[in-house]
Amino acid sequence: MSDSSPGIVDLLGVLAYAELTAFLRLAEDAALFAPTLNDRAALGDVAATEYGHFRVLRDRIASLGADPEEAMAPFVEAIDAWHAQTRPKDWYEALVKAYVGVGIAGDFYREAARHADPSTTALVDEVLADGGRSEFAVERMRAALDADPRLCGRLALWARRMVGEALSQGQRLAAARPHLAALLVGEQGEDLAEIGRMFARLTEEHGRRMTALGLTPNG
Amino acid sequence: MSDSSPGIVDLLGVLAYAELTAFLRLAEDAALFAPTLNDRAALGDVAATEYGHFRVLRDRIASLGADPEEAMAPFVEAIDAWHAQTRPKDWYEALVKAYVGVGIAGDFYREAARHADPSTTALVDEVLADGGRSEFAVERMRAALDADPRLCGRLALWARRMVGEALSQGQRLAAARPHLAALLVGEQGEDLAEIGRMFARLTEEHGRRMTALGLTPNG
Repeated sequence: MSDSSPGIVDLLGVLAYAELTAFLRLAEDAALFAPTLNDRAALGDVAATEYGHFRVLRDRIASLGADPEEAMAPFVEAIDAWHAQTRPKDWYEALVKAYVGVGIAGDFYREAARHADPSTTALVDEVLADGGRSEFAVERMRAALDADPRLCGRLALWARRMVGEALSQGQRLAAARPHLAALLVGEQGEDLAEIGRMFARLTEEHGRRMTALGLTPNG
Repeated sequence: MSDSSPGIVDLLGVLAYAELTAFLRLAEDAALFAPTLNDRAALGDVAATEYGHFRVLRDRIASLGADPEEAMAPFVEAIDAWHAQTRPKDWYEALVKAYVGVGIAGDFYREAARHADPSTTALVDEVLADGGRSEFAVERMRAALDADPRLCGRLALWARRMVGEALSQGQRLAAARPHLAALLVGEQGEDLAEIGRMFARLTEEHGRRMTALGLTPNG
């Protein structure tokens, strides 16, 4: 698959806009909700890392001869809609959103790496290499659940709603951008069942993250 | 002057909280006001750079055996008050705030470097080395003023108000934190006239930035 395939530019574009927006939203959540300066700095750290990912992706788009703004444009509406539907109302919702959101983004990078050309795979490795910053959310959530087990049901529902909205927007994009879908699921690009299996893998990974946070998927 | 002087911890604390807050506010302004995705990314770049500065300062505070949260705490009220009084209402005000705010922060680093111990001076150099990201504001403002010269008066007043509020909060802090004042003005720590001269230098630098933006100080 050539570097300049429309699927590659779509993939880089959706990830770039997702990272730019995650950066801005996480920074806003840190400013609004963090209960201590250390918490604000920790969530800020996750946000700044997302900006670093954006920078890598934007430079890659430009190096392919495409315009980053144009590459991102088709995905603005879906990603903005997801954030509008998943605005945290408190620090715990912000923590779960950071952990779940960064995790889902990482899953998409891994799916992309399964079928992309070697230079895109190298970029994916670079982006994933500095991961792990959102792990602080696990520690904070487990302490919060120990102190107040009643948080569990509300936050499990919150996480499920976030993922439901993400899958819904993702399915819509996969239908609207067949080149992108082809890149993510390989040879069987037009095979909706293969796309379904990819989303099933994403959902399984999400379940593992819920367990790590102490939130059972059906809690 | 020893590494663990209260002035040094105060200096690192006020700069750390200023950078953390600048990061979060710039990210918010980028999300709210940027007219294009490229503009959003450019202001996001300034924000992420501020976060990098915060990280350097926080690590330095910890390496001195002080607690970063405690070191920042005395300055939260003044810096939050400044941001509350200087919320941009549009993209141009956000641009001017980014350029003026990052510039004033740089001036404080330079003042600190005049009298601090060598390791703090080295840290200041590190923070200043990756500067220049806010320069994009100059280009954008000059294009905007060419298109609509009437912007000049409003934005010059806006910039003057921002600096007036900054000097007001700064004078209050200098009175409340004598160790910090001593570090910034050297031997003449208790000399209010020397503090006044430092603020005069900051104001002169601000005037140069206004000229660079195309906003005359008394416009």
